[in-house]
Amino acid sequence: MTLTDPVQVLSALIRCPSVTPLEGGALATLESLISPLGFEVERVTFRDPDTPDVDNLYARLGGGGPHLMFAGHTDVVPPGDTAAWSRGPFSADIADGMMYGRGAVDMKGGIACFVAALARHVEAHGAPAGSVSLLITGDEEGPAINGTEKLLAHAAAKGERWDAAIVGEPTNPDAMGDMIKIGRRGSLSGTVTVQGVQGHVAYPHLADNPLRSLIAMTAALLDPPLDSGNERFPPTNLEITSIDTGNTATNVIPARATAQFNVRFSDIWDGDSLGAEIRARLDAAATASALRPGRGAAHYEIEFRERPSPSFLTRDQALIDSLSAAVASVTGRTPELSTTGGTSDARFIKSHCPVVEFGLVGKTMHMVDECVALDDLEILTRIYQAFLQGWFHRAGAN
Amino acid sequence: MTLTDPVQVLSALIRCPSVTPLEGGALATLESLISPLGFEVERVTFRDPDTPDVDNLYARLGGGGPHLMFAGHTDVVPPGDTAAWSRGPFSADIADGMMYGRGAVDMKGGIACFVAALARHVEAHGAPAGSVSLLITGDEEGPAINGTEKLLAHAAAKGERWDAAIVGEPTNPDAMGDMIKIGRRGSLSGTVTVQGVQGHVAYPHLADNPLRSLIAMTAALLDPPLDSGNERFPPTNLEITSIDTGNTATNVIPARATAQFNVRFSDIWDGDSLGAEIRARLDAAATASALRPGRGAAHYEIEFRERPSPSFLTRDQALIDSLSAAVASVTGRTPELSTTGGTSDARFIKSHCPVVEFGLVGKTMHMVDECVALDDLEILTRIYQAFLQGWFHRAGAN
Ligand SMILES: [Zn+2]
Ligand SMILES: [Zn+2]
Repeated sequence: MTLTDPVQVLSALIRCPSVTPLEGGALATLESLISPLGFEVERVTFRDPDTPDVDNLYARLGGGGPHLMFAGHTDVVPPGDTAAWSRGPFSADIADGMMYGRGAVDMKGGIACFVAALARHVEAHGAPAGSVSLLITGDEEGPAINGTEKLLAHAAAKGERWDAAIVGEPTNPDAMGDMIKIGRRGSLSGTVTVQGVQGHVAYPHLADNPLRSLIAMTAALLDPPLDSGNERFPPTNLEITSIDTGNTATNVIPARATAQFNVRFSDIWDGDSLGAEIRARLDAAATASALRPGRGAAHYEIEFRERPSPSFLTRDQALIDSLSAAVASVTGRTPELSTTGGTSDARFIKSHCPVVEFGLVGKTMHMVDECVALDDLEILTRIYQAFLQGWFHRAGAN
Repeated sequence: MTLTDPVQVLSALIRCPSVTPLEGGALATLESLISPLGFEVERVTFRDPDTPDVDNLYARLGGGGPHLMFAGHTDVVPPGDTAAWSRGPFSADIADGMMYGRGAVDMKGGIACFVAALARHVEAHGAPAGSVSLLITGDEEGPAINGTEKLLAHAAAKGERWDAAIVGEPTNPDAMGDMIKIGRRGSLSGTVTVQGVQGHVAYPHLADNPLRSLIAMTAALLDPPLDSGNERFPPTNLEITSIDTGNTATNVIPARATAQFNVRFSDIWDGDSLGAEIRARLDAAATASALRPGRGAAHYEIEFRERPSPSFLTRDQALIDSLSAAVASVTGRTPELSTTGGTSDARFIKSHCPVVEFGLVGKTMHMVDECVALDDLEILTRIYQAFLQGWFHRAGAN
């Protein structure tokens, strides 16, 4: 095993079938690989009555500041229909310059490149002038209860403090150098239930069809758009994810109907202001709608699911610049600084230190035949290497 | 048993637990009651592989014309929560001038009053100058497959022809004399399925949410109204009876969604023109909607359920006038000539002869503690008696 070769490191990780929430040997493999670099490794299992136990790993190299964290996960989503894969999903087979396997880009590949970059840095310059920590969880693809959030709290309680973090999730839509993520939209989910009055379709005046209200109310949530975005964030987007009634009698007006929705929101909103806007739109549509003329306000309830995850934006310019410069120096491209896409564990890290995200090309993630170009592994390793050098240089100068 | 007393006849019928599709002794009781009047009675069982066997009764008194049909059903809807009834649902208990029991008004009461009216007519004037037939089915409250439609075809195949029919369903909303039904709206049901593209809520541009289209499409079906009615029919009314998606993942845009609808339509439409209007509205909303901006036409399918039942209007003025005059002479009120309400077996009869409907007060039908005022039974018996006299007088004069 040559630690400076990301292909060899990744191949060892892919062969561990660490389908979330199973450790599958992946953290043990990682531990044995990084220990020779001088890392002090701690394995922590978190338990919660409602979810499976999850193994996690926290490792620190060096004792002083500045302190950089690399965050990621070794758990992977299930391979799905194994017969549909052209190579075994845990084979790490190489063909035509690609390595195949679940986790190749999301995100054992990112971990492999960071380990190889660090090994190259140590080989060339010795240990970094400060500390590097790896925070690797086993339930990013699961409920995210026994992973990053608890591991951060656990390490912080032991006195760990970080100056910056980089997350190795696949951030590039099409090619290496496309995109760095410097924040994420917030997320808010909820359920709207309209209570009507059941009755026969031939006597609608004796009933009150909740779907008339619910159609008007969901339309009001969708139009007009909540905002058109700003220079930092794409437009806030609301999706109605389900409308359900469960009425099988074709001549019966149902008694109630529900709609589920999710909003991905820009920093123009927070959970409270967005919740108020949603209620205002629902109230207006429930009170007066052309779809339900001549009636009083419809009776409805709204329930927001758990706490909303707020949006965030990283404002550590030195961190962003170090990463952008590293990407530019290796790829010759200027990456877009984006806040698009789904949530990631960065939403937990940002409470502890500034965080950015950069990794491989995400195209095949979660799909059959997930794979990574060997060239991309080399490019990402060089980018991480340049980033390490640049960040410690800038951070050390402060 | 005094056949001229509707209370005694009804009490015998209510005590037969003829919950649809069971005969429960009701047709046998009816047969034994009317045979002494001179009726020739035929009992016919219809079978269909997909539904239960159903017993029916066709009885004719007299051989010549004119020929009047009385149509009805002895099956009843289930009593529901028997414990919630203050009297046994098959007890025919009398209290405070009311007789209690399932079928009291829908429509064993109507049958009892017609039998009593006919018995009084025969007692006073002898057999009518023509023929009277009873067409009594056992699945009006069921799927209506092995009942009136087949019984009409069966009798017609044997050479039976009718000049007019009266259906004894409860037609009065509040009090005897309120309303005669001289037609019914048509009914059309269907299912709209929108096929979208599943995806993650954080990447809506990679998905296509079918609910955006379905909300716009169902709104387009509801608004503007299909018509505002005319002097013969109330406004056409469309109800969305169910919208279903079945998506439990709050961060996933679903792949498809369905809506069910039913239209009760005036004679401004027939099944074809209404179907075309529905398709046109769906097409327009699927092609351009503020809820799904910047996309091509949404893919959807519409399936109309079975053949629509068309609207109809009875134009036999002599029939309508005979019934109106009978109602007016007994109650002192001029009944509304209406086409409101749900479908009835009149939709089958109208293909054979002109048909009108008049019966008891429907308030308690299908409810716990269904009951009929003894006074109303006497009033309806007198109305049917006056109708028999008037109709045979007019029809015989032609
Ligand atoms: Zn990931
Ligand atoms: Zn009925």
